[in-house]
Amino acid sequence: MNFSSDNVSPICPEILNAIAAESDHAALPYGADNQSQQLDAAFSKLFETDVCVVPVATGTAANLIGLSGLVSPFGGVVCHHHAHINMTESTGVAFYGGGAKLLGIDGPSAKIDAHTLDAFLRAHSPNGMHSVDPECVAITQSTEFGTVYDTHEINAIGSVCKNHDLRLFMDGARFANAVAALNCHPADITWKVGVDVLSFGATKNGALAVDAIVLFDRELRRHTEKSRKRGGHLFSKHRYLAAQLLAYLKDDLWLRNARHANEAAVALQHSLESIGAKAAFTPQGNELFIHMTDELAQSLRDAGIVFRPWASIGPDAYRFVCTWNSPIDLIRNIPKSIRT
Amino acid sequence: MNFSSDNVSPICPEILNAIAAESDHAALPYGADNQSQQLDAAFSKLFETDVCVVPVATGTAANLIGLSGLVSPFGGVVCHHHAHINMTESTGVAFYGGGAKLLGIDGPSAKIDAHTLDAFLRAHSPNGMHSVDPECVAITQSTEFGTVYDTHEINAIGSVCKNHDLRLFMDGARFANAVAALNCHPADITWKVGVDVLSFGATKNGALAVDAIVLFDRELRRHTEKSRKRGGHLFSKHRYLAAQLLAYLKDDLWLRNARHANEAAVALQHSLESIGAKAAFTPQGNELFIHMTDELAQSLRDAGIVFRPWASIGPDAYRFVCTWNSPIDLIRNIPKSIRT
Amino acid sequence: MNFSSDNVSPICPEILNAIAAESDHAALPYGADNQSQQLDAAFSKLFETDVCVVPVATGTAANLIGLSGLVSPFGGVVCHHHAHINMTESTGVAFYGGGAKLLGIDGPSAKIDAHTLDAFLRAHSPNGMHSVDPECVAITQSTEFGTVYDTHEINAIGSVCKNHDLRLFMDGARFANAVAALNCHPADITWKVGVDVLSFGATKNGALAVDAIVLFDRELRRHTEKSRKRGGHLFSKHRYLAAQLLAYLKDDLWLRNARHANEAAVALQHSLESIGAKAAFTPQGNELFIHMTDELAQSLRDAGIVFRPWASIGPDAYRFVCTWNSPIDLIRNIPKSIRT
Amino acid sequence: MNFSSDNVSPICPEILNAIAAESDHAALPYGADNQSQQLDAAFSKLFETDVCVVPVATGTAANLIGLSGLVSPFGGVVCHHHAHINMTESTGVAFYGGGAKLLGIDGPSAKIDAHTLDAFLRAHSPNGMHSVDPECVAITQSTEFGTVYDTHEINAIGSVCKNHDLRLFMDGARFANAVAALNCHPADITWKVGVDVLSFGATKNGALAVDAIVLFDRELRRHTEKSRKRGGHLFSKHRYLAAQLLAYLKDDLWLRNARHANEAAVALQHSLESIGAKAAFTPQGNELFIHMTDELAQSLRDAGIVFRPWASIGPDAYRFVCTWNSPIDLIRNIPKSIRT
Repeated sequence: MNFSSDNVSPICPEILNAIAAESDHAALPYGADNQSQQLDAAFSKLFETDVCVVPVATGTAANLIGLSGLVSPFGGVVCHHHAHINMTESTGVAFYGGGAKLLGIDGPSAKIDAHTLDAFLRAHSPNGMHSVDPECVAITQSTEFGTVYDTHEINAIGSVCKNHDLRLFMDGARFANAVAALNCHPADITWKVGVDVLSFGATKNGALAVDAIVLFDRELRRHTEKSRKRGGHLFSKHRYLAAQLLAYLKDDLWLRNARHANEAAVALQHSLESIGAKAAFTPQGNELFIHMTDELAQSLRDAGIVFRPWASIGPDAYRFVCTWNSPIDLIRNIPKSIRT
Repeated sequence: MNFSSDNVSPICPEILNAIAAESDHAALPYGADNQSQQLDAAFSKLFETDVCVVPVATGTAANLIGLSGLVSPFGGVVCHHHAHINMTESTGVAFYGGGAKLLGIDGPSAKIDAHTLDAFLRAHSPNGMHSVDPECVAITQSTEFGTVYDTHEINAIGSVCKNHDLRLFMDGARFANAVAALNCHPADITWKVGVDVLSFGATKNGALAVDAIVLFDRELRRHTEKSRKRGGHLFSKHRYLAAQLLAYLKDDLWLRNARHANEAAVALQHSLESIGAKAAFTPQGNELFIHMTDELAQSLRDAGIVFRPWASIGPDAYRFVCTWNSPIDLIRNIPKSIRT
Repeated sequence: MNFSSDNVSPICPEILNAIAAESDHAALPYGADNQSQQLDAAFSKLFETDVCVVPVATGTAANLIGLSGLVSPFGGVVCHHHAHINMTESTGVAFYGGGAKLLGIDGPSAKIDAHTLDAFLRAHSPNGMHSVDPECVAITQSTEFGTVYDTHEINAIGSVCKNHDLRLFMDGARFANAVAALNCHPADITWKVGVDVLSFGATKNGALAVDAIVLFDRELRRHTEKSRKRGGHLFSKHRYLAAQLLAYLKDDLWLRNARHANEAAVALQHSLESIGAKAAFTPQGNELFIHMTDELAQSLRDAGIVFRPWASIGPDAYRFVCTWNSPIDLIRNIPKSIRT
Repeated sequence: MNFSSDNVSPICPEILNAIAAESDHAALPYGADNQSQQLDAAFSKLFETDVCVVPVATGTAANLIGLSGLVSPFGGVVCHHHAHINMTESTGVAFYGGGAKLLGIDGPSAKIDAHTLDAFLRAHSPNGMHSVDPECVAITQSTEFGTVYDTHEINAIGSVCKNHDLRLFMDGARFANAVAALNCHPADITWKVGVDVLSFGATKNGALAVDAIVLFDRELRRHTEKSRKRGGHLFSKHRYLAAQLLAYLKDDLWLRNARHANEAAVALQHSLESIGAKAAFTPQGNELFIHMTDELAQSLRDAGIVFRPWASIGPDAYRFVCTWNSPIDLIRNIPKSIRT
């Protein structure tokens, strides 16, 4: 069993079939094909509001290009220190943002608290021309530590943004897991509470390679499409991005996959805690951060279970990520397989 | 029959099968998987020299990231005015090159002539700190007008580059068609004649979405990989890029597909010229630029044939692009289907 | 006599005195001082319209920062091939413009013709997302070849810009010489005919180091000031930029200096043509481009006259630049001093 | 008495005279003049090693351009959170560094401690391609809080840099004040202890507008000069930058001015502490950070003394900056003038 990342999982059958179904005929390039033309409507229906959708092949691209419309080259993006955009996207925010700067703040379990944010923005006494003024806030849902902002928390952050005249971006590489965890409507944690742009992840949750930049502010479309093209992210065979996304939305595949992964994570927590491990945070999505002894870690490895140490949480901390195809029965049997 | 672009063609079966074969098991992300680990060896074997390969999902990304290691933020990239990087890649060269500037020169049939290049470089009296000095030359093989540089022509350009201490980049979005047309070894028109970096296209020739940046100068690896990551082009499920490329190389699929497309272009030229059209250039690859009357153009359209006007060649000019799956028999029957 | 550039001339006394007068007291930094606070009013009076003024220390900075507000990172700046921004400002336009691209066009005596411009813009069939669309036109007044656009010519260009929805920038490093040549009001060749931003040169015409970015579109102020600060061009002792500019405007010093330089250029043309040289263009400002024999050139050099060859005009071409302090009497005596 | 910044002080007479002395003759532009040609030798003599000098007009430009040669577009610059480059230079480091990122760390009195730095670098477990790896460390001497690194402290930082293969940059906007405070040789706190590039400030200490980028690694010259030109910072009348610097070095004017300012700061501390204020740090240069009551602050203001609140140190904190022309006698009389 491989829990090292959701990225180790393969394409799920529905999406593979959708790709195959696009492979026996010609289609217009660069988004003019029939599949691509359905994207805006499909996502508008999902979110119950008119949106524009700009798909790209990676989550990093979705974040960087999605953010680039919300901040000027002189501005700052406030995010949690542990945010993916701050820790694992190279200097990409400055690249696509023309120099825009990340301003990291702290908070428990990789979450920004609205009061902390407000205090930071108030304390940030801008020095006129000299300083970098915050122009945007970016949050990750579900977070890098497997936790989930509830509707009230995002609403509070959205209010702070509005008060300080900042835009709000959501890194939704694991958005599906958050919706599954909250059992809410996608609109409840996005545009209804102030999110301007969402990167809607599919790659980690069953796709080959596609994440959708969802623009709740549709005036960002032109900038976003220009930025995508300039960055080399406009697919000529765009239909293959669209086909993945349409299959992902169809019959709530995105949500079913995420529910499975979340359920697997709960099962995994139970299994691991029953043999002496302890979760660092209450897991809400598909990621589980675990404290355990060297001996237990070694026993798990000996049983063929793959996972990664996670030093930023502690010397005895490890990350386990469940996916759309994690074998829940086997997970429940872990305690047995270890003890034997 | 759709000749509007090679981008309208679907994935070819061998590559679709390779993707499907990667869809029943876990694999390490970001290029650590088994498929990705075979890429350098496979391409080194193909080119009969040690190379590094950095795959990306689009031809524009392959060009922009591949070029970025060959020019400083203060330098110039000499290319043909009609080069894809100059005409259809937005401001991407400056973006990935930190400001690097395109310096366009002319030449018949979208080809740079070595003497013209040499004269340009000599006439370019650099003004010390003030001017943009050429640091790199970029050629397209086969060209944007469907012509092909022969070995001697590239060798001559390579020598001029060496004399002026410039690097040489090859945009090989249709490299396979050029090799098929010249019936040469891939090495003969690349590293043996001075090419430092090649973008080796697969997307237009049967892949879903992958082009390989082939580094003949392997010291460029680190820069190229950093540039790819920062640009959001590092796939987490990297195996799907690798699987496409390995299938593309296996049993010379790349060459077989290109030969088919080239053969179709020859057949198409014959068919169209037999009914009054005239090729603007002697077609050597899979692209055909045709002068014809409005009436003929309309007859073709009425017969369900799709193609695009091409104003940069003339008001009566049109482009036809053949692909790995162009139906050669139907192409041969075009005159009949028109006359009836 | 040194005619190699206007940059070889020293500060003129009025401006040196203004600097000295600022050197016996404290003053607020970064433009909050009394002198700086007078700039907008002084330039608004000069141009008879409300303007914002952002001073910087070099002409290149004035061009690059001034332009940066008129073009997006995906857009193009149409200029003459011989424009200073294209030939002698490194990759600065892309640097300050976030990747913006220069699109060079031709025209006699370094001037853009309105019809040529219109034809270029019409022929520039934009390729949707892929191409670089012109967003701005930049002209130089007086031009790099010492010629001057008259009011009608600029008006025609301004109309073309308006029709194509483009912004208009004027590189006025030698704006004073143009106004002196045309004997017009500064407004007649700027905002009244569609110029959005002007770099108003002082350095070449008697200042130590200051050029003013004059914003006729005052909404550009914030962007321009942010761009100036980020580029390291915001002076802490800003009063010394302001003091130079106020002295330059006072009692029309800018115009008197320019008239002197222009008059010297006319005298120089007469002197040189009387001994066999021939002007390449009818000089209208302070720059003179001359064809002459090697022998004559050597005689001039032997007489202690300094000037530069100018290969872009021809192998027998040379540039002579007159300045605010060129010795007109000595210039008139050149033929005598040569013959002796 | 104005203590709001060193930037409120005027040009000192020696430097004004040097500017005036350059105002009666022609001179070659762009650094080819006699004054500019002496710069490398003058600074090499001062530092007792061969250096290259690239002068610019502002301290921000000196920092940004000087740093740009020490970090790649994918790399990080480690600095103190309170560093000028982090707090008051907009997004300039990313701008000139092609996206390079500032990585802030903490430390008392705005100083980086070598052990903290080493721990930070060790804890910064690089995530391969994904993270931003530190490539350079930047320290400020004297610091933003008026403190000074002694030779041992810089040497320790230099050793950490060497061990981690990082470059070392020194922001020396107030370098003269540090040398005066330490009573050391300039070499002792720069190249001898590992500094690669120094911005050597003059503007705050008596110049009109010039700071020198001093390259101890002379191979950085070409990059630095290219970066300066592209940024619009190459003066045409370069002699006026050179003349200021040569006058600044002559007869140790730089050191005499700094000693005066430091002495004034000591006197000011005594005066203020004698009436109830308390220094936040032991002042070592020309900056004094003071805690005092609202009443005392108001009394000082009533006596015509100008200074600024400094919230980043505390709600009752204020900054006083002394300069080359601060009136020491009047400073000593402050307690009297307040009491009356």
